[in-house]
Amino acid sequence: MTRKVSGPEIERVIQLLGRLPGLGPRSARKAALALIKRRNDLLVPLSEALADAVAKIVECGTCGNLDTVSPCSICQDSRRDTSLIVVVEEVGDLWALERAGVVNGLYHVLGGHLSPLDGIGPDRLNIARLIERAGSGTVKEIVLALNATVEGQSTAHYLTEQLAPTGIIVSRLAQGVPVGGELDYLDEGTLAAAIKSRRRM
Amino acid sequence: MTRKVSGPEIERVIQLLGRLPGLGPRSARKAALALIKRRNDLLVPLSEALADAVAKIVECGTCGNLDTVSPCSICQDSRRDTSLIVVVEEVGDLWALERAGVVNGLYHVLGGHLSPLDGIGPDRLNIARLIERAGSGTVKEIVLALNATVEGQSTAHYLTEQLAPTGIIVSRLAQGVPVGGELDYLDEGTLAAAIKSRRRM
Repeated sequence: MTRKVSGPEIERVIQLLGRLPGLGPRSARKAALALIKRRNDLLVPLSEALADAVAKIVECGTCGNLDTVSPCSICQDSRRDTSLIVVVEEVGDLWALERAGVVNGLYHVLGGHLSPLDGIGPDRLNIARLIERAGSGTVKEIVLALNATVEGQSTAHYLTEQLAPTGIIVSRLAQGVPVGGELDYLDEGTLAAAIKSRRRM
Repeated sequence: MTRKVSGPEIERVIQLLGRLPGLGPRSARKAALALIKRRNDLLVPLSEALADAVAKIVECGTCGNLDTVSPCSICQDSRRDTSLIVVVEEVGDLWALERAGVVNGLYHVLGGHLSPLDGIGPDRLNIARLIERAGSGTVKEIVLALNATVEGQSTAHYLTEQLAPTGIIVSRLAQGVPVGGELDYLDEGTLAAAIKSRRRM
């Protein structure tokens, strides 16, 4: 016996919040309540911030990053090594690499990974533009920094094939034990990769 | 070495989303990206739904529930037993009980629990109105359906004291093994309560 307990207005907010990544039905309900209860110090500023972001943020026509300018500030940064392109699935991955400060080259955001079952083929990703950039003459190496998932890795293989005719070096991230990782908690695939790619001290 | 990677517009959205319950910094970033990427099918409908909810939703002047009318549709429901009031901390708790369909009485939403360290005393909660309702003559029993936390239980004790002069029956939820719960995974407090309140077959 289940009754519909909150009105249609709140249900609609809950349903839309539930579509955000990381918010299940339970946390969507809690978030909706918080937004409605804290109208002035949370809901109104959030609405304004979102409108502001949507008005100002554009997708970089070169790499697919989100910024207020296109080409984005990374693509425009003259201190960066334009011979290196790091390919990522999502803008969030680009942010993660920038936070780590480990990339001095440029990026290319695919906008996801290949997923035939979901109808996501190469034409749905930002791949044609990558091939174009690869053929521009300045690029020497392309690093495929895709997720270590089945989809990420099959996308990496597809890109490797597509980029082969250009003759550019195509590499991928090292796999192994994460910093701080305890062997006892790692899966066999990670351990196998860590042994296989072992390095001399 | 950490660099600020997204612009101030996106940072502001991330910061505000991070204030929602259940969203950490990581999921706030993911949610912000999703909102900005999916402008038409997510951000715009969500903004509209929130504006609609805020415009129409009011707090029930009787019980503190959120609804489009005050008194709310539960308080107005003539089929409900007006001699029973179930006291909860938050509207979300009321929804949970209504989903379970186990309450045929009315509710009273406190709006939180007593928390002296956070400066939340009885005057910050919807308690005066509860005492008033308890004294109206129609109420025979008040069920304190507060969280089984230290704060919830000390709030329950405070309310029990405050309601004592009215002579109304004050009860609380049973404590014990949750349905589907495996003894091996339950804490000692739950097991102790389950033993103490054991019932004959």
